[in-house]
Amino acid sequence: MSKSKVNKVKHIELGRIENPLFLKDLSYKELDVLASDIRGEILRVTSTYGGHLSSNLGAVELTIALNRSFDFSKDKLIFDVGHQCYTHKILTGRSLEHLRTKDGPSGFQKRSESIYDCYEAGHSSTSISAANGFAIARDLNHENYDIVAFIGDASIVSGLAFEGMNNLAHSNHKVIIVLNDNGMSISKPVGALASRFAKISTSAGYNRFKSSMKRTLQKGKVRNGIYNFFAGIKNWFKRHLTEPTIFTDLGFAYIGPIDGHNIKAIEKAIKRAKNTNKSVVIHACTLKGKGYKYAENDETGYWHGVSAFDLESGAPKNKHEGEVSWSHLYSDICEEELRNHEKAILISPATIKGAGLDSLSDDLKERIIDVGIAEEHAATLASALSLSGYHPIISIYSTFLQRAYDEVSHDLARMNCNATFLVDRSGLVGADGETHQGIYDEAYLSSIPNVTITIASNADEAKALFDESFNNHGPFFIRLPRTLLKKPEAINKVNIPYGTWLKLSEDSSKQLAIISCGPSVRELLPLIKENGIDATLINALYLNPIDEKMLCELLEYSKIVIYDPYSTRGSLVNLTSAYLLENGFKGAVKAYFIPNEFVKQASINEQLEKYHLLPKQIIEDLK
Amino acid sequence: MSKSKVNKVKHIELGRIENPLFLKDLSYKELDVLASDIRGEILRVTSTYGGHLSSNLGAVELTIALNRSFDFSKDKLIFDVGHQCYTHKILTGRSLEHLRTKDGPSGFQKRSESIYDCYEAGHSSTSISAANGFAIARDLNHENYDIVAFIGDASIVSGLAFEGMNNLAHSNHKVIIVLNDNGMSISKPVGALASRFAKISTSAGYNRFKSSMKRTLQKGKVRNGIYNFFAGIKNWFKRHLTEPTIFTDLGFAYIGPIDGHNIKAIEKAIKRAKNTNKSVVIHACTLKGKGYKYAENDETGYWHGVSAFDLESGAPKNKHEGEVSWSHLYSDICEEELRNHEKAILISPATIKGAGLDSLSDDLKERIIDVGIAEEHAATLASALSLSGYHPIISIYSTFLQRAYDEVSHDLARMNCNATFLVDRSGLVGADGETHQGIYDEAYLSSIPNVTITIASNADEAKALFDESFNNHGPFFIRLPRTLLKKPEAINKVNIPYGTWLKLSEDSSKQLAIISCGPSVRELLPLIKENGIDATLINALYLNPIDEKMLCELLEYSKIVIYDPYSTRGSLVNLTSAYLLENGFKGAVKAYFIPNEFVKQASINEQLEKYHLLPKQIIEDLK
Repeated sequence: MSKSKVNKVKHIELGRIENPLFLKDLSYKELDVLASDIRGEILRVTSTYGGHLSSNLGAVELTIALNRSFDFSKDKLIFDVGHQCYTHKILTGRSLEHLRTKDGPSGFQKRSESIYDCYEAGHSSTSISAANGFAIARDLNHENYDIVAFIGDASIVSGLAFEGMNNLAHSNHKVIIVLNDNGMSISKPVGALASRFAKISTSAGYNRFKSSMKRTLQKGKVRNGIYNFFAGIKNWFKRHLTEPTIFTDLGFAYIGPIDGHNIKAIEKAIKRAKNTNKSVVIHACTLKGKGYKYAENDETGYWHGVSAFDLESGAPKNKHEGEVSWSHLYSDICEEELRNHEKAILISPATIKGAGLDSLSDDLKERIIDVGIAEEHAATLASALSLSGYHPIISIYSTFLQRAYDEVSHDLARMNCNATFLVDRSGLVGADGETHQGIYDEAYLSSIPNVTITIASNADEAKALFDESFNNHGPFFIRLPRTLLKKPEAINKVNIPYGTWLKLSEDSSKQLAIISCGPSVRELLPLIKENGIDATLINALYLNPIDEKMLCELLEYSKIVIYDPYSTRGSLVNLTSAYLLENGFKGAVKAYFIPNEFVKQASINEQLEKYHLLPKQIIEDLK
Repeated sequence: MSKSKVNKVKHIELGRIENPLFLKDLSYKELDVLASDIRGEILRVTSTYGGHLSSNLGAVELTIALNRSFDFSKDKLIFDVGHQCYTHKILTGRSLEHLRTKDGPSGFQKRSESIYDCYEAGHSSTSISAANGFAIARDLNHENYDIVAFIGDASIVSGLAFEGMNNLAHSNHKVIIVLNDNGMSISKPVGALASRFAKISTSAGYNRFKSSMKRTLQKGKVRNGIYNFFAGIKNWFKRHLTEPTIFTDLGFAYIGPIDGHNIKAIEKAIKRAKNTNKSVVIHACTLKGKGYKYAENDETGYWHGVSAFDLESGAPKNKHEGEVSWSHLYSDICEEELRNHEKAILISPATIKGAGLDSLSDDLKERIIDVGIAEEHAATLASALSLSGYHPIISIYSTFLQRAYDEVSHDLARMNCNATFLVDRSGLVGADGETHQGIYDEAYLSSIPNVTITIASNADEAKALFDESFNNHGPFFIRLPRTLLKKPEAINKVNIPYGTWLKLSEDSSKQLAIISCGPSVRELLPLIKENGIDATLINALYLNPIDEKMLCELLEYSKIVIYDPYSTRGSLVNLTSAYLLENGFKGAVKAYFIPNEFVKQASINEQLEKYHLLPKQIIEDLK
């Protein structure tokens, strides 16, 4: 794009931006117009393709100011999580068209997309540790550039971010942390630090005190002795009044709080930060969802991540009449379980809304704990609750459960604590791509002793499994795919003894058996009938332990197909294969599963098709 | 034990203690004698059986005071990690005889041992989250008792502890945290918080300032206006001068620092803590290793955990002449690699000493980073270093690597970052028991795409694998068993192409193949010859990916034995089984591996024997 010197406020054509250099030539008025235009583009794109909305609308000015103050082709900008990077993509010459679709731009930072992306994430709270690593490399190389970690108030309270801060503040490797404090990063922030931030940002007392002290000193009536006294405590005031934060306790320089929508103010803070000789935190207050009324007024986190919607009304474009997500189905069952079991207690690490649990009735609130982005804490907390006779229900996304691997093993499974895990977004997840796939949990959970891993194929089984999880089986995991199912008219009680698989059809000749699981088994059933395939179809609700009794019946079959489109080789395929091999099965085995890869963004169907895992593809093979 | 009312200082017979009730009848002088006797017992037992020494010697008075002030048959005491609980075991009527042996007491808290143990750990930083869970249960039940988390300064800086603090401080559920600050929990604490603690504990300035302020106010010369001014900032002083800690920032009450070896002072602090209406931190300063000169003067962490030693000289009882641990072998190779690769950089999460890396030369210090107990941070930091062209070598215990599962996947493997992991204490670990087994990593790492997992059977292979890890293979894991090997006279260069297994012997009739790995394969080799067993013996250095080319050669064999005594079904057994099954192997397969259980303490040999995994047991089966 040609650089423009303009005297009147004019619009920049976003589609013609090649890099952020043009920003330096714009006036603050022009920058405000640009910010507004970018907001319009973010709204247009997310309303068309879905995506992260509120966090992006809140970060527009900060991102503009950062790209004016730094050269991120050389300096490094690390967005924590990364889903707030849309403005950065626009400013670095990337179109958001086809966002999060198969061949479109990622919803996160992506090194392969641009030299302006030096790092990638998707999970929270990695940015400070990463910045620390980049800073060590820079300093070992005796190079000279700036490193910026851009992190929200919900992410900074997670353990990993604290570990990063604790190490960084102690080191001589300078990093600039921009704390984007919108006071409700996904929904409401929880925890002590969050309320501390709130106090700092809004502290009338703090500002009053500063003024009062100024006035007192100006009166000129203070004696010499008091002067000396004040001189002696100058440093205390500096540390404890002008910088009243945990950051200075840790050893960071601190700038703020500043208005994160005032580009001039941000730039001033950045200038100070650049001149600081140690790692520094710029505390910027922003309004999440700024510029879109529905998002600004959102208290539940509804507008955090959205599917396509109508801009005018805010209503979702795809209605999915008669369908319900597995998350919402389990949310309804969860309410029932909480009512039936007075010792049941629900724990969520900042995903109450995402997991559809925001509809739970207010009278249950005492037994609903949102711990914020603290998956590890959630699991260890659950272990003590379990040992106290409570039954924790931990609702957690498969991909975030990874972070609690150690605690699930060391604190829950080792002491055989009873707990129900609703493993949300299990299997392929579609548009979020590599960082959010829920295809690994079957495998990593199976490496832990004492666990039960399950998946239901319909609503009745969902209820049955949830019920069964209360019967003292230790940590009991129920996987929920990120797909929709037909809204059930009623949920029927079905009796499924612990650990047993269900036979949905029987091949009288005992030639072919298909072992599958989850909703896909229900798709297979009519297909094998329609296509005249004579097969014993097994619904493997229990992925670990497996139903060895039923497997024993299959040892005489000539062909066994294992089909788990929700997981890598994981548990079902591995355990079944091992059983067959070690028990002398002499027939042929064909296993269908997701290869152990980081699966790129696309629709779930596209991803399944790519890996030859659609039910119709299996049927084609069988014919 | 009968309660005693004595006027002169007398000794309590430790072996006759049944519960801590007798403590209430003792004078402070008698308590000091008791503390000294307990130290003697700890020294006697650890010098006989090995165990954790320094932390236990440092915690004697704190534990006595806690057991005098609380009734832990009802109140709850949670030792973080738990290896500092020896005094607690003695005071609650447990003998330390046969400590950490097959049928002896655990080196950690153990619920099955005593009603005075309400929780168990082994990994660090879980105590605050657990205490939070117990407190929620107590309050939901409208019960009334105290909950104490006892945590050291090295453990409290880990992310999980921070998550616990952040949530606890924000909640209405009261917990008393005893911070046992010895300034060098394992070796030296690292990070910002540690240096902050050091400042608080030793701050002459802080004490001087308090005195100065007192004097100034006593002079009575201060004007009314100034009085008001002071009244206005009273709260500020309260918060920022008398309680200058991160804990008050988070919202805790804070008591300290106090002398953690002065029982009276500790009890006074506990009394205050009990009367506080919110969660509170008692900051106690202690001397690690107190009462044993070698441990008191230890700066490297040598006396943290020890094997049997001579009390007088401090010298280890078992010399292991001519042998070396795998840790020390790899430490030597590591020094060579750091010299050969100027971009290699060593990262350790607080286990420099434990992993034998304290002998690395001083001139390499710039490229050695001890991040403290922060496994997650270590992995994410490593990813940025790798992306910057450095090659991180992460030395970490298998059992602690669990905590970085998410970061290994999301930050390292996903971006295919080159890194070498020295997975120390892989396989069975013996005396540390359930919480420290290194038998799961083969399985959980295999659930992550892009990883390479290996194990060497001798020193030459160790060097070859370490070298190979620098050849751009992404995250490359080398497992180190917790056993000894014959000290090699020299390390020879051997050429082992990436991913290939080695054939150590060949069965000309192609009947029997044994696939094994690690040092056990070297034990098998002479045994099969001695016993006249005709077998193709394969050394599977690569556990993932496996050598499919070699496996293909074995498809015609009639029997295949897979023998991995360092892991659960994990990777080698699972991947090999799957390959055989899916490629039409029609022979018999017998797999030997560690069952997926939490393995109790015993010697490694006892553990192997129990699971029928000793080489001689395999040979018996083969005969």
